[in-house]
Amino acid sequence: MAQVQRMSRLMVKTLRDDPADAETLNHKLLVRAGYVRRTAAGIWTWLPLGKKVYENVARVVREEMDAIGGQEVLLPALLPKEPYEASGRYEEYGDLLFRLKDRKGSEYLLGPTHEEIFTQVVKDQCASYKDLPVILYQIQTKYRDEARPRAGVLRGREFQMKDSYSFDTTDEGLAEAYALHRAAYQRIFERLGLDYRIVSAVSGAMGGSASEEFLAPAPAGEDTFVDCPACDYAANTEAVTFALKPVEGAAHPAAEDLDTPDTPTIETLAEHLGVPASATLKNLLVKVDGEIVAVGVPGDREVDLGKLAEHLAPAEVELVTAEDFEGRDDLVRGYIGPQGLQKVRYLADPRVAPGTAWITGANKPDTHAKNVVCGRDFEVDQYLDVVVVEDGDPCPACGAGLKLDRAIEIGHIFQLGRKYADTFQLDVLGQQGKPVRVTMGSYGIGVSRAVAALVEQTADEQGLCWSKEIAPADVHVVAAGKAVQTELALDVAEQLNAAGVRVLVDDRAGVSPGVKFTDAELIGVPKILVAGRRSAEGVLELKDRRTGEREELSVADAIARLSA
Amino acid sequence: MAQVQRMSRLMVKTLRDDPADAETLNHKLLVRAGYVRRTAAGIWTWLPLGKKVYENVARVVREEMDAIGGQEVLLPALLPKEPYEASGRYEEYGDLLFRLKDRKGSEYLLGPTHEEIFTQVVKDQCASYKDLPVILYQIQTKYRDEARPRAGVLRGREFQMKDSYSFDTTDEGLAEAYALHRAAYQRIFERLGLDYRIVSAVSGAMGGSASEEFLAPAPAGEDTFVDCPACDYAANTEAVTFALKPVEGAAHPAAEDLDTPDTPTIETLAEHLGVPASATLKNLLVKVDGEIVAVGVPGDREVDLGKLAEHLAPAEVELVTAEDFEGRDDLVRGYIGPQGLQKVRYLADPRVAPGTAWITGANKPDTHAKNVVCGRDFEVDQYLDVVVVEDGDPCPACGAGLKLDRAIEIGHIFQLGRKYADTFQLDVLGQQGKPVRVTMGSYGIGVSRAVAALVEQTADEQGLCWSKEIAPADVHVVAAGKAVQTELALDVAEQLNAAGVRVLVDDRAGVSPGVKFTDAELIGVPKILVAGRRSAEGVLELKDRRTGEREELSVADAIARLSA
Repeated sequence: MAQVQRMSRLMVKTLRDDPADAETLNHKLLVRAGYVRRTAAGIWTWLPLGKKVYENVARVVREEMDAIGGQEVLLPALLPKEPYEASGRYEEYGDLLFRLKDRKGSEYLLGPTHEEIFTQVVKDQCASYKDLPVILYQIQTKYRDEARPRAGVLRGREFQMKDSYSFDTTDEGLAEAYALHRAAYQRIFERLGLDYRIVSAVSGAMGGSASEEFLAPAPAGEDTFVDCPACDYAANTEAVTFALKPVEGAAHPAAEDLDTPDTPTIETLAEHLGVPASATLKNLLVKVDGEIVAVGVPGDREVDLGKLAEHLAPAEVELVTAEDFEGRDDLVRGYIGPQGLQKVRYLADPRVAPGTAWITGANKPDTHAKNVVCGRDFEVDQYLDVVVVEDGDPCPACGAGLKLDRAIEIGHIFQLGRKYADTFQLDVLGQQGKPVRVTMGSYGIGVSRAVAALVEQTADEQGLCWSKEIAPADVHVVAAGKAVQTELALDVAEQLNAAGVRVLVDDRAGVSPGVKFTDAELIGVPKILVAGRRSAEGVLELKDRRTGEREELSVADAIARLSA
Repeated sequence: MAQVQRMSRLMVKTLRDDPADAETLNHKLLVRAGYVRRTAAGIWTWLPLGKKVYENVARVVREEMDAIGGQEVLLPALLPKEPYEASGRYEEYGDLLFRLKDRKGSEYLLGPTHEEIFTQVVKDQCASYKDLPVILYQIQTKYRDEARPRAGVLRGREFQMKDSYSFDTTDEGLAEAYALHRAAYQRIFERLGLDYRIVSAVSGAMGGSASEEFLAPAPAGEDTFVDCPACDYAANTEAVTFALKPVEGAAHPAAEDLDTPDTPTIETLAEHLGVPASATLKNLLVKVDGEIVAVGVPGDREVDLGKLAEHLAPAEVELVTAEDFEGRDDLVRGYIGPQGLQKVRYLADPRVAPGTAWITGANKPDTHAKNVVCGRDFEVDQYLDVVVVEDGDPCPACGAGLKLDRAIEIGHIFQLGRKYADTFQLDVLGQQGKPVRVTMGSYGIGVSRAVAALVEQTADEQGLCWSKEIAPADVHVVAAGKAVQTELALDVAEQLNAAGVRVLVDDRAGVSPGVKFTDAELIGVPKILVAGRRSAEGVLELKDRRTGEREELSVADAIARLSA
């Protein structure tokens, strides 16, 4: 049987003031309540109360992973570089990777995620289609050398993750494993008491196709996402799409040159002409694998170069430099318009739809043109969503104005497909007796990060405020201080413990009742039971940490209520 | 509720042959039975069955640590170098330490053990004597860059340890924490089913005083220890002591020179004189912090230089070279005897007791002397146990002949004292209102190593052979192959599972009964229940994995028996 946790023996030191360097709620409160301690930048120690909360989160994750047939394993964190070289990620990760050598000079890394190693494990352990499907998971320590480790345990350089990987012989199998994970993640985050959104995501450095993120809205979050106030649409800003809506029937006058000296930027042009920037067409030149390409967006919008690179990957995207204009008389710097581009591929935002008219460069110095119509005066070679999403942009689902919000990424699910299986030639013998290439999914939950996200979403001015499933105890019994109160508190604590209730009891001597109450609020156990003024009569006060509601109860009623 | 584990879905691939590079039982069998997989030299993956066994060991350790009031925490593995520089261990560990730099060039190490960081945690969290005593523990991943990682999970470079640390204000408090750990370790190793000895140990690089090792005798072990077949004495070979017993009353003739040309070694001398090597006295010259010192041991014994260095630490011990003899006419190389040494300190093994007579160098070229008596012709400045212990040496406790054996170190307990508290100035406010320096203990159990030790001690020719507490399941149900057998096996498995029994069921299609039986023996679950030939009648065969005993049982009897 578990034991009553006595504050007089527990290593927990609470602080009245926020740590000087703390910017986020989880950093402030987890340190102040004695849950964690910083060991180095982005590297944390979980103290006794923090370890309990962490383990409770891990238990929920483990139970739900087991429920979908996940098999738990434990992979090393210290990994040979070769598999990551094979996948290309040894280079791609850049400075994010902790690299080291052993005594013989062999090169290793500290695992940031384990696709490569899991692929090798399955290649070794599974030979036939009969051995699949399989879902493997681990709850394990990961390493990423973040440039700016910050925000407490939200973004550490050493952190704990549940990562799982599914292996199937068919696309349908992968879709099923993905759906199983999606449902498991919903149950996990609901049990943890996190408010979250599922958003479609681009897959970034992971490579792959279908991918969704689980985001917990919170001001401390490092991700920006869009949320539709009118429907249930939500998306990573990088995944927002804008529908292409050709404008039909509008008769525009013929294009006409405008004398616009000294207006090489949209700002100077709009001011000179007295038109809004949105009436102009901005044409950005970039090099795609060395070839000059133009990208057109409305003059009031910014191009997200990251999104552009993502769309064009694996081609390399660079900005043009002055040298690139040498010998290119067709390109008049600052006065480019798509209607005059002959040898240059033209990409555009869907807002530059067929039938829309623009003021744009006339491909002559100091000259622009108006009434330049898409589809009449120029053609778009390819439409791409590359503008930075803004507050009020139309929802792709319902058209209402989107809202930009900050969130913490707490989970991520990917259909990786055959990328890693191709790299490591992971085949199994198929039903027809021929080798079948395996398809793979990869799924992550930040376990230590989920603790931080919970704090960010649930803490209040008094301190931490845990749900029952996650709290380090079910009840925090406070002995106000006198002998009769301490005696009653310890007695009730033992009775509750015997009834299976997890109890923390503040039996510290020489600590004032005020400090004990403040500490109880800070520590955030859901129910606070005070052996105070009416202890001699056997009457206790029960307080709900979240609502602040109080009531007086007899010992028997308190035990009955709390062990129910 | 836990689910039945079905072999048809479990990722477990058994092998008939030992891996080519495997030398030890645990390496061979854990790989062959699909429990672990090598990721790199000394770096292992725990596969689903292995993870279960590992977790069972960790659970036992955790329960017994909680029972002595241990508070679980989790420290990082990636550690800043400064605390280890302060303690001197950043240098002392030498090549054993994995060192690395982050993107900013700051230096880090992968923690081999955590005394420094725990000391800092307590300095931060505990201010008063009221906050102590405290026992903190973690089950965590450790790193040591072993020169020869070998023997499967017995000696990894990444491995899992339970390390705990006690903090007290008094020596009595430390002694109590030490005793609590000693008793907890005994319970842990008994529950795990390990055969072990507790031996006194020297503390090595850890620094400190009282220290004992828990050794599991096994041929694969890397530690040598002595065991007394007549009494309960057992010790690390480096900790064996030999009692000094002066020989009284024996009248020896006066010392006398012998002409012994060309006999600079014990072998040549003994042969020349026709005496046993044990009649001669070997005098080894070493430099202790630069000063020449002689060490005398019987001619048939070897000096353990490690032991000598340990005794004389922190002084530095080196062997003498030819240069050291220059200008030292008192030192005649190859013919040194303690009776002629004037300016040289003489250390000796207790076997060179007062009253014993020896043949030794006469401090003249080509000359030895006989009847050189300790206490009459020379004096010993200091007695030290520095000879290599041999089979048959007398037991310090009862005098019987000791037995040398190999063992695996599975636990280690240390009274560190104030070494680290001094380094980090760890004081708390004492009862008298003055700062009191804290005293500390450090205690370790290799969790992954315990799994290996269990295999080394309990496996047999058929394979692994777990005790109930540690096994990945309680019962391995084997469906021989026909539909009626599989149906019965799955039905019994579900009933057992409902009764709280952990079940592994071999429901694989297309696998012969012979392979299934062989696999069941290899995997090593304690009870094997076969749905075979008499399945149609509802009769099963129950086999005890260890004893091989078999009996036939009805379904109801099998369930009653196994869930008892």
